[in-house]
Amino acid sequence: MDPVILDRAEAPAGITTGTLFGVGMGPGDPEYLTLRALRVLERAPVLVHFCKRGRRGNARTIADAVVRDPAREMALAYPYTTELHPEHPDYVAALAGFYDDAAGRLADHLGAGRDVAILSEGDPFFYGSFMHLWRRLKDRFPVEVVPGVTGMSGCWTRAGTPITWGDDVLTVLPATLSAEALAERLRGTDAAVVMKLGRHLPKVRAALAAAGLLARAVYVERGTMAGERVVPLAEKADDEAPYFSMVLVPGEGRRP
Amino acid sequence: MDPVILDRAEAPAGITTGTLFGVGMGPGDPEYLTLRALRVLERAPVLVHFCKRGRRGNARTIADAVVRDPAREMALAYPYTTELHPEHPDYVAALAGFYDDAAGRLADHLGAGRDVAILSEGDPFFYGSFMHLWRRLKDRFPVEVVPGVTGMSGCWTRAGTPITWGDDVLTVLPATLSAEALAERLRGTDAAVVMKLGRHLPKVRAALAAAGLLARAVYVERGTMAGERVVPLAEKADDEAPYFSMVLVPGEGRRP
Repeated sequence: MDPVILDRAEAPAGITTGTLFGVGMGPGDPEYLTLRALRVLERAPVLVHFCKRGRRGNARTIADAVVRDPAREMALAYPYTTELHPEHPDYVAALAGFYDDAAGRLADHLGAGRDVAILSEGDPFFYGSFMHLWRRLKDRFPVEVVPGVTGMSGCWTRAGTPITWGDDVLTVLPATLSAEALAERLRGTDAAVVMKLGRHLPKVRAALAAAGLLARAVYVERGTMAGERVVPLAEKADDEAPYFSMVLVPGEGRRP
Repeated sequence: MDPVILDRAEAPAGITTGTLFGVGMGPGDPEYLTLRALRVLERAPVLVHFCKRGRRGNARTIADAVVRDPAREMALAYPYTTELHPEHPDYVAALAGFYDDAAGRLADHLGAGRDVAILSEGDPFFYGSFMHLWRRLKDRFPVEVVPGVTGMSGCWTRAGTPITWGDDVLTVLPATLSAEALAERLRGTDAAVVMKLGRHLPKVRAALAAAGLLARAVYVERGTMAGERVVPLAEKADDEAPYFSMVLVPGEGRRP
């Protein structure tokens, strides 16, 4: 169900609609915010972040240095996140309803002329939740996306390793793929980033071993954030991996 | 031949060596510099950029808003860039000599206690020339890498299209690969970025067609810079593509 909102053509005379901003918050360290992101965060009257129910979103934590006025904040709590598979129809329906409802709330602000900034971890157009609101609002309101340093850039920076040299092919893989699909893709690439680890780490480890890449793999947890941890995957004894963790397989291309 | 430099252990008493900074300059628009990059650029006594002989490097152009003191600048002009194939032994030898010589010049500054910042387009550890100097200096001097917004993030931002949704696999491909290798990799991915286009555009176009992806491909030239151009690849009549251009194939994954 699409929310009822003011179309731009229907806006009362004298009211200009607000702009929807997708603000890339970078990998975690607030020093990696861009100048443009900082400017938007300082000025936008409505600052939106996603979170799990009862928790603070990470994008919001990055903004701590900037955001000090609770009246500007709007938290969007995901309906639930781990109880159902992401492709289960009930989950898809619940998420769609959540995004529809959120888009409606943002449209009310935008229609009234208030700029709305959605705080997005990393880069807004790279696996970002922002995209689901953008898709619902982009044809009705002006949009500006502020690109950000991705989480994976933050991770390979802190791991102290270049990810691609010369003509290396880089493949970015969600750990949610099957073990076979992961191994096949890993065999066909020079460098890789495996994201969304969570409970999938044992499967990722097996796929890397099957592709002969386990010795090159580096595990990075909370890159550029408090509690950061970098360790060769082969030396990581347990299979615990929080949401903000990934595995890097650095390329070994041309090095004159 | 490795340059003779002061080892840290050999530095004269009382002299602390400088730090080598790899500074991600982002995709082009100076507003996409990070706060950390700005701070380093403002303070480092030696600012290094790569360029083609007789031209100004793009990383240096991004820094225009910050760098106003020519005395701090050092330009490193590549020996040559298009006359020979990148894997030709003469080219590899010339490049290696160029990097050795440059590393020696930087080591002199670092050994004397001066911080050196290397301006890197996009992100320093993602296909960056910085990496070749870092490799030669990292074991002798303190290093800080400042991650940056990649050129590809800048391009998909300005193309107005998310690059990956849900569990999409993203493959980053250098256009220098063979037509067959390109087509095979394109067939096996959900989303793609093809970099380093130059004279390879006809081949890339053919590979995209072979993989059934030509209709989805977007051509972006000088993303976030002056002279920016975004056009569906199928509508681009000519095969001209400057260095700062790439082809995007946006993913079409899960969209609740």
